Amino acid sequence: MKNILVIGAGRSAVSLIDYLLDNAEKENWKITVAEANVAGAKALVGDAACATVVALDARNADERAALIESHDLIISMLPAFLHIDVAKDCLRLKKNLITPSYISPEMKALAPEVEAAGLTFLNELGVDPGIDHMSAMRLLDELRKDGAEITNFESFTGGLVAPESDDNPWNYKFTWNPRNVVLACQGGAVQFRHNGRFKYIPYQKVFRRTEIIDIPGYGKFEGYANRDSLKYRELYGLMDVPTIYRGTLRRVGFCRAWDTFVQLGMTDDSYIMEESMNMTHRQFVNCFLPYSVHDTVELKLMHYMKFDQDDTIMDKLEWLDLFKEEPIGLDKPSTPAQILQRILEKKWTLNPGDKDMIVMWHRICAKSKGEEHEREIHSSLVVIGDDEPRTAMAKTVGLPVAISAKLLLSGKIDRKGIHAPMYPDLYNPILDELEAYGIKFVEREIPVEEQRPR
Amino acid sequence: MKNILVIGAGRSAVSLIDYLLDNAEKENWKITVAEANVAGAKALVGDAACATVVALDARNADERAALIESHDLIISMLPAFLHIDVAKDCLRLKKNLITPSYISPEMKALAPEVEAAGLTFLNELGVDPGIDHMSAMRLLDELRKDGAEITNFESFTGGLVAPESDDNPWNYKFTWNPRNVVLACQGGAVQFRHNGRFKYIPYQKVFRRTEIIDIPGYGKFEGYANRDSLKYRELYGLMDVPTIYRGTLRRVGFCRAWDTFVQLGMTDDSYIMEESMNMTHRQFVNCFLPYSVHDTVELKLMHYMKFDQDDTIMDKLEWLDLFKEEPIGLDKPSTPAQILQRILEKKWTLNPGDKDMIVMWHRICAKSKGEEHEREIHSSLVVIGDDEPRTAMAKTVGLPVAISAKLLLSGKIDRKGIHAPMYPDLYNPILDELEAYGIKFVEREIPVEEQRPR
Repeated sequence: MKNILVIGAGRSAVSLIDYLLDNAEKENWKITVAEANVAGAKALVGDAACATVVALDARNADERAALIESHDLIISMLPAFLHIDVAKDCLRLKKNLITPSYISPEMKALAPEVEAAGLTFLNELGVDPGIDHMSAMRLLDELRKDGAEITNFESFTGGLVAPESDDNPWNYKFTWNPRNVVLACQGGAVQFRHNGRFKYIPYQKVFRRTEIIDIPGYGKFEGYANRDSLKYRELYGLMDVPTIYRGTLRRVGFCRAWDTFVQLGMTDDSYIMEESMNMTHRQFVNCFLPYSVHDTVELKLMHYMKFDQDDTIMDKLEWLDLFKEEPIGLDKPSTPAQILQRILEKKWTLNPGDKDMIVMWHRICAKSKGEEHEREIHSSLVVIGDDEPRTAMAKTVGLPVAISAKLLLSGKIDRKGIHAPMYPDLYNPILDELEAYGIKFVEREIPVEEQRPR
Repeated sequence: MKNILVIGAGRSAVSLIDYLLDNAEKENWKITVAEANVAGAKALVGDAACATVVALDARNADERAALIESHDLIISMLPAFLHIDVAKDCLRLKKNLITPSYISPEMKALAPEVEAAGLTFLNELGVDPGIDHMSAMRLLDELRKDGAEITNFESFTGGLVAPESDDNPWNYKFTWNPRNVVLACQGGAVQFRHNGRFKYIPYQKVFRRTEIIDIPGYGKFEGYANRDSLKYRELYGLMDVPTIYRGTLRRVGFCRAWDTFVQLGMTDDSYIMEESMNMTHRQFVNCFLPYSVHDTVELKLMHYMKFDQDDTIMDKLEWLDLFKEEPIGLDKPSTPAQILQRILEKKWTLNPGDKDMIVMWHRICAKSKGEEHEREIHSSLVVIGDDEPRTAMAKTVGLPVAISAKLLLSGKIDRKGIHAPMYPDLYNPILDELEAYGIKFVEREIPVEEQRPR
């Protein structure tokens, strides 16, 4: 009998807990779910005999340590900044640990001690980071094994609304953390490499330099650049790759309309707006436009953004009730970004029954010695959510964590130290089992005559 | 006999030292100029019997204190961040102090002790801050004395090249700190108030929301917004003023062309560019544009910025040699902002014999009880430099400092504590004497029928 402790049972833990419950009998597991919101956790666990819910404030060091001590494997589904406390407990109490989050510098610093203690801490086992790493590394390793040199690496991921629930002119609803969507790409220029040249895009141009991506069966998407492409050169062993670019997927037309918010200054999170508590949507928009006694907010915005009279961006903005004298409804004086988020949440929320969708797409090019032409391989993944709370996001974040828990407990992973799933012994069994849950990449080799000039 | 110590004899101290030497005999002054660059200071002092140059590293606390102790009045013309050390010495050694710089929070914290010690520390006595405060407050106080309510306060200042030395398509040369010009308006949204409405402009739109200002005899200028207008409400006693706006002046067309650098991302100071040491001007530009095998950098830029084929902005960019395969010539890996500054310095430097120009312009509107119409008053100042190093900038920064030194030593200022020249006992005698040096505002009352709708 192995005892598994899941700390945190928020939205990202749903499919993880489902998997653990489904496999508990066969694998001889006993599961404890520790969560501040006991009722919420109980709803997920139901009446399963193999599982217990306990109340835990994860910041209470004594209670947390006592729970960790009495389990064999710890899975932290807490907000990312709380993993480090759990990790230090696990090191001290000699327990293995799994998290879906990026390896923080603080976490990384524990690596020598974790390895010396013969422990395994697995991280970056969600969707992004997680499935992106695993699927990319499997492709890259296969090509490199054949002696090919990688010449192009592009990778895009998006959390979107499923086609059957897509009923608004933005073709978008919030399916995860809305704040991250509003603040996307802020805090420094986008940096990437294209055909050997370093390229830079400032925040004010990111949403106007998108790429169109066609995924067979799902139509066209557009991708805007992430800030951090260059650091993936080291992570993926691609230091000299001429082209490396990572981005985020939206439906076509989203980014050009979103750019309106960027250009107006509505995504700024650095200052509190005066008189924001009593503001209407329309007044909020007007704060970013020149004063006029006569002209309407609508025309001022169209002129400011140089929109033609029949530009469909105005439909998108109007659909958001952006020009209505409707109270924003804030509970405290707020930044432009916080206010924009509040307005968007009124309209971009999933309705009951709505399904979300995760889309991932890689383009990898490689050249083998002696070959005249490069190979170009596209690999895409589309996952549709089952329902709320069993969303595509919950499945793609929770299932890799769950599968790696099974692998670890059954002794199939003997890697010690702190790791992300960059190695075949990790990514192969996880990706293989994910296919049983409909999380399956479709690969397509592009014939030479159809390859896009780069 | 009074002993004056001037610490720092850089470009901003030239006219100050001239004035002190000119008035030394009459006023019975002995002047010590303390400066790290002794030869430079000696060139300014010449063979004046009333003055001595001493070598000083202003960060050497012992040497600095010894010098301060043996003088009656201390004038710090050091870089602004060094004033606080001098101020603490002055407080301890019971000496009065003058600086041209903003009162820093650290400086402000000393105010109760300075006042209790019966000392006077005068600050913000340059051009901006300095002459801007004095000229604005004189106008505002006069209107308020008559019982008028201030309804509009706009104020613009610019450091430019004089018309007789203006020989390039930007109508601009660096006349002061180039780094401040490159980084202008970064670090947070512009905030101001217009007819009772709070208004915000993000960095990416600042240089496209300019105002045209006509100064009789000098032609048209354009003003872009400074970041800090709202804080002047408290400084100038204008908390409820419906319109408050401060800005920076350039010649017409400058801002639209400068916006090219903003949109490309060339003013970003937050990251070091890869391979920057070996880069040419043209390669630098290309880093911010999409990759293309065939297209020229010029056409890519015109397309990116949506310039028409005959847009004169391209003449401005070409005049800067921006598209040349010329080495940038950096001594260390640099940020985009540092590289842009280096390229601009090659062309925007004053030639021998060139003159600079300081331009200041206020528009103040006021309404008196019972009057049907508002009054609108424009007040403008234009100062042309004599030569290098007796520039308009040196005169307008140094002379208010010098005049306030005379007032302080002759007992005409009995205000104790830490102050900026916001009060008639300070601004009146200084502004009056500045007129003898050609630093004179021209006031114009705008007839009701010519007043611009706001």
